[in-house]
Amino acid sequence: MKNVEHIGIAVRDMEAAEKLFGSLFNTQPYKRETVESESVETSFFKINQTKIELLEATNPDSAIAKFLEKKGEGFHHIAFEVEDILSEMERLKKEGFVLLNETPKNGADNKLVCFLHPKGTNGVLIELCQEIKKPDL
Amino acid sequence: MKNVEHIGIAVRDMEAAEKLFGSLFNTQPYKRETVESESVETSFFKINQTKIELLEATNPDSAIAKFLEKKGEGFHHIAFEVEDILSEMERLKKEGFVLLNETPKNGADNKLVCFLHPKGTNGVLIELCQEIKKPDL
Repeated sequence: MKNVEHIGIAVRDMEAAEKLFGSLFNTQPYKRETVESESVETSFFKINQTKIELLEATNPDSAIAKFLEKKGEGFHHIAFEVEDILSEMERLKKEGFVLLNETPKNGADNKLVCFLHPKGTNGVLIELCQEIKKPDL
Repeated sequence: MKNVEHIGIAVRDMEAAEKLFGSLFNTQPYKRETVESESVETSFFKINQTKIELLEATNPDSAIAKFLEKKGEGFHHIAFEVEDILSEMERLKKEGFVLLNETPKNGADNKLVCFLHPKGTNGVLIELCQEIKKPDL
């Protein structure tokens, strides 16, 4: 794993959360992005090399809505950047970790992502992510 | 805030957790340290610039033991490195955040630390930390 790419935080009210974390970090979010396939609205802060991703549900059946219902607002996941997501998924499967998606899926911020089941990772939801490289023109 | 210095994870069994996260990160912890004043045993991994700190209670009355009892194993806190902890504490108090300790205290890894009440930070326990500089000889 190359580095902690971002930390995801589940929020109920994006505008209030952007204001709160803006005041905490003393900086403003630099972008918002909706991931339609996951029914989630995201907002990103950057603290040096690490991003903080706020996550708000856009649909009551989404994973984030269910998370908020069960656990309330707060820490949601840690995302580690990897060089090659397919080989890292293969390595972790061999180590006995359970992947929540067997093939990488598209996440926010131009990334291929894979989540590991938190029951196998000490209760911490872990995301692997790899930047989608644009082809050379 | 300068950067995400570390992410704290509460664990029940340090040896099992070191094995699990060692296998997840494909690297070994580089040090263990007991913080007697907090009744906590810590173990550190380093993933590029960010540390992952495992936290195990050494006493059933400690904050970590109570956290584990209430919430179970998992994410515990995010620590942000700051240049000047006193001025950052002052700034955050003015912004309305509630400090859990009014003066910096000694944490693991040669740091002065201050925690913010998670009720005021969207449910996420936030630590500020500043490295204790050794005096020039």
